[in-house]
Amino acid sequence: MKYTLLIDCDDKKGLIFKISKVLYEFDFNIETQQEFVDKENNKFFFRAVIVGDVDKEKLKEAILKEIPCANVRIYKKRKKRLFLMATKEAHALGDILIKWYSGDLDVEIVGVIANRDNLRDLVEKFDIPFYYIPAEGKSRVEHENEMLKIIEPTKPDFIILAKFMRILTPNFVERFPNKIINIHHSFLPAFIGANPYKQAYDRGVKIIGATAHFVNNNLDDGPIIEQDVIRVSHEMSWEEMRLQGRDIEKIVLSRAIKLAIEDRVFVYANKTIIL
Amino acid sequence: MKYTLLIDCDDKKGLIFKISKVLYEFDFNIETQQEFVDKENNKFFFRAVIVGDVDKEKLKEAILKEIPCANVRIYKKRKKRLFLMATKEAHALGDILIKWYSGDLDVEIVGVIANRDNLRDLVEKFDIPFYYIPAEGKSRVEHENEMLKIIEPTKPDFIILAKFMRILTPNFVERFPNKIINIHHSFLPAFIGANPYKQAYDRGVKIIGATAHFVNNNLDDGPIIEQDVIRVSHEMSWEEMRLQGRDIEKIVLSRAIKLAIEDRVFVYANKTIIL
Amino acid sequence: MKYTLLIDCDDKKGLIFKISKVLYEFDFNIETQQEFVDKENNKFFFRAVIVGDVDKEKLKEAILKEIPCANVRIYKKRKKRLFLMATKEAHALGDILIKWYSGDLDVEIVGVIANRDNLRDLVEKFDIPFYYIPAEGKSRVEHENEMLKIIEPTKPDFIILAKFMRILTPNFVERFPNKIINIHHSFLPAFIGANPYKQAYDRGVKIIGATAHFVNNNLDDGPIIEQDVIRVSHEMSWEEMRLQGRDIEKIVLSRAIKLAIEDRVFVYANKTIIL
Amino acid sequence: MKYTLLIDCDDKKGLIFKISKVLYEFDFNIETQQEFVDKENNKFFFRAVIVGDVDKEKLKEAILKEIPCANVRIYKKRKKRLFLMATKEAHALGDILIKWYSGDLDVEIVGVIANRDNLRDLVEKFDIPFYYIPAEGKSRVEHENEMLKIIEPTKPDFIILAKFMRILTPNFVERFPNKIINIHHSFLPAFIGANPYKQAYDRGVKIIGATAHFVNNNLDDGPIIEQDVIRVSHEMSWEEMRLQGRDIEKIVLSRAIKLAIEDRVFVYANKTIIL
Repeated sequence: MKYTLLIDCDDKKGLIFKISKVLYEFDFNIETQQEFVDKENNKFFFRAVIVGDVDKEKLKEAILKEIPCANVRIYKKRKKRLFLMATKEAHALGDILIKWYSGDLDVEIVGVIANRDNLRDLVEKFDIPFYYIPAEGKSRVEHENEMLKIIEPTKPDFIILAKFMRILTPNFVERFPNKIINIHHSFLPAFIGANPYKQAYDRGVKIIGATAHFVNNNLDDGPIIEQDVIRVSHEMSWEEMRLQGRDIEKIVLSRAIKLAIEDRVFVYANKTIIL
Repeated sequence: MKYTLLIDCDDKKGLIFKISKVLYEFDFNIETQQEFVDKENNKFFFRAVIVGDVDKEKLKEAILKEIPCANVRIYKKRKKRLFLMATKEAHALGDILIKWYSGDLDVEIVGVIANRDNLRDLVEKFDIPFYYIPAEGKSRVEHENEMLKIIEPTKPDFIILAKFMRILTPNFVERFPNKIINIHHSFLPAFIGANPYKQAYDRGVKIIGATAHFVNNNLDDGPIIEQDVIRVSHEMSWEEMRLQGRDIEKIVLSRAIKLAIEDRVFVYANKTIIL
Repeated sequence: MKYTLLIDCDDKKGLIFKISKVLYEFDFNIETQQEFVDKENNKFFFRAVIVGDVDKEKLKEAILKEIPCANVRIYKKRKKRLFLMATKEAHALGDILIKWYSGDLDVEIVGVIANRDNLRDLVEKFDIPFYYIPAEGKSRVEHENEMLKIIEPTKPDFIILAKFMRILTPNFVERFPNKIINIHHSFLPAFIGANPYKQAYDRGVKIIGATAHFVNNNLDDGPIIEQDVIRVSHEMSWEEMRLQGRDIEKIVLSRAIKLAIEDRVFVYANKTIIL
Repeated sequence: MKYTLLIDCDDKKGLIFKISKVLYEFDFNIETQQEFVDKENNKFFFRAVIVGDVDKEKLKEAILKEIPCANVRIYKKRKKRLFLMATKEAHALGDILIKWYSGDLDVEIVGVIANRDNLRDLVEKFDIPFYYIPAEGKSRVEHENEMLKIIEPTKPDFIILAKFMRILTPNFVERFPNKIINIHHSFLPAFIGANPYKQAYDRGVKIIGATAHFVNNNLDDGPIIEQDVIRVSHEMSWEEMRLQGRDIEKIVLSRAIKLAIEDRVFVYANKTIIL
């Protein structure tokens, strides 16, 4: 059996010694281990993949005995459950579907919700449940609650906003802290909000980008997980930027999903530590 | 009506004047125009997208009257016909299918051939004809001829090797000069041949890449259309490099396809000029 | 003799024909030619490097006869004159000095002004006049006028702000429209203003950048000439980002200088067209 | 006092526990710690920066008692001594000089040797000893021995080949194992040997690069420390590629130097592990 052990706590001398002592006494094989100290905030972060016959409660207890104030999480390696949300663009959603279909993304996709109906055909090709939940004539919260009724019973590990073009309210966001991953089609914090490609075109930038981040209550302001960019030139219209940007969007999103499902992403001070 | 006008010839004074005079006299709107002079080889390359009521033969005649030795091609803007070839990996093929399905790649896909059968299900989801042509027990030329019997009647503009893992012989290649586009999973000319990710891992490079090129009779030596790279580190196994490399492969291939179907790629001296 | 011919005007049919007719009749060799039409604003931009015995006034007259409303500029190829301004960091200034010293940057450096004195030693190693003009106890305009008294007699083609850490007022800026090039140490429009590396660190971005732009009257809002980026991680302090960012800053600045001195940069609608 | 502790040995269970136990018992502050296990070769690599009153011999003894077969190195943090070698190009050498001069590169430069004399003026501006050792009329070994007579007494930590355009023989190389860093002006292993920009131009690549590597006895085949790339196009002559490539060369070299002087680079199986 394989487990991921995540620990974070205030930094002090001897933390690695204490943790590795416990792991040694339990006689685990450590497949990989990383640690990071955020010196500005005096915080310690630790991730290990351990192999063995793990009694999660006993391990946790032993670590807490050594480091009483630690935040300890132990996850058995298993397929993570993703719920996808989209609007009408197929590129990010389609990339996830193909990666999942081919085995390159080792997850369960437990459902797809969209506020348009045009992606149904694509999703159903892959025998994944598709739910069309239009927003028209509903308050934001009503629309969200309708979606939550479908999402919550599926117990997703992560909710992936694969170009879901609506703003979620705290009513939705606060149920899934650091579990909702959005792809924003700009190099944040540049070009927050609507039509960032048009904004980028108007500003005359020479590089455009995409940003995958956890969603919090401030628009496009959540902890950034991954970013990437491509060069553009004066020859490109904003529609051309959008077209070329889609490849970056989908790849940045899929890299962020990979980091998340491998339990590599710590969030602290609205930033991510990736171990 | 929209046309692409492509001209190449030995460079000399006044070529642009002569071409633009003809276009002006025909009263075309020129949507975009680029030219390039390869000074090393004294060659002139010209591409224009022209809009109007074009009589292709008359236009060609008028240009040849001004520039007798020119190689003039005039293509009506239309959906190009792609024939895809693959083996067993889904990422490059799937990316083309999703782009085509969503309208981001404006082509006709006239068929898919593979020498394994596992991609059939994916291709048929999109209602595209799939042909499983195993190579076992056949000579290369026999296998190729079997494929040619399917491909040639579809009159493809381009044949896309979306991770087709077999070497094509001159028997096949010479029927489609500068029409077969391959994606090689390395930054050519580094790591020619089999398993370039393993070669890259063994050499300890810090960056890996992918190369889209026209196929000629020398292995991985055709004119390069597009390349891109990603950073890797000592932490990555070669299998992890392969996984991450797939995103670069598919994007480099799709950029090359876009350039090809827009008739932007001239080939000269085993290199590409992209206008 | 070699000349750069720059033309911009409202787009209409036949512009290239008319220009190339004039060039043909004058019997020039055209070394390189590019054109661009900004369809959104219906503007035409043209650049050619022409070789021959050019009478600038006659050529201009002939072009204006064909295209009366055109803005025509003809520059004889010569070493451009750069005036450099800095504060205390050596990397951008030093890079320019080394490139100039080795012949990789073919310009005349007519002087360096700084509002600190610590760069004097470096500049004087290269026998370039250094002027220390402190700002303390002076109004912005007084300080600027003191600098202008030194700069203006040198008749610079471009003023390069090689990490000059003060804001210039319209009093200064408006005398050199599209002639002052600044390097900003962020990927604009992200992180305008002071200490962008600290801002980037606090936001937790995964990529940082640098932007070279012409200076106008709005802080960090002038037309962007060139940008580039590097990856960063949670492991880097903002001081480490600053250190690594310096390499990008200096390279982006030197690319922008190269484009400017080759007369490749048109400015329109607060953006650059680079031919 | 600050020390870098480097350990490598065959991997087995409990190594981190044993090391951290020793460090804990010695009561050191650990500023940063990284470890890596090369699973293919079953090798363990460890690096820590420790702060405290270290008795190097006792610490080494204590670690070897726990892990008898380990290779343990303990370096006091101090300015590393660099000896630079060049031929005639100023960009890489100049970049090191400016970084050193401004304090961005915290080293001692103990001398510069060149087989041409034209860099003397630049080097002497910075009051660094310059030695012109021409190769003409000497065997390789004679030339090397002449250089070694100057270099060896300076006891350099690293020898930096800042575009030193001659091949060193085992006579020279074997005295400085993993201490000679070369910058090769291509993306190795592409374009080994002479004039890689011309080779890249002839092959028609769309991206060029630079590679910093330790020198071993096979030409351009040593362990790669760092690489980076830039895009090129058909419009660039090979001389233009060389000019633009210089910026990448110097930056890749300076990144490699930074990693080396911070004792971050392990060499194993002709590859580098960078902690």
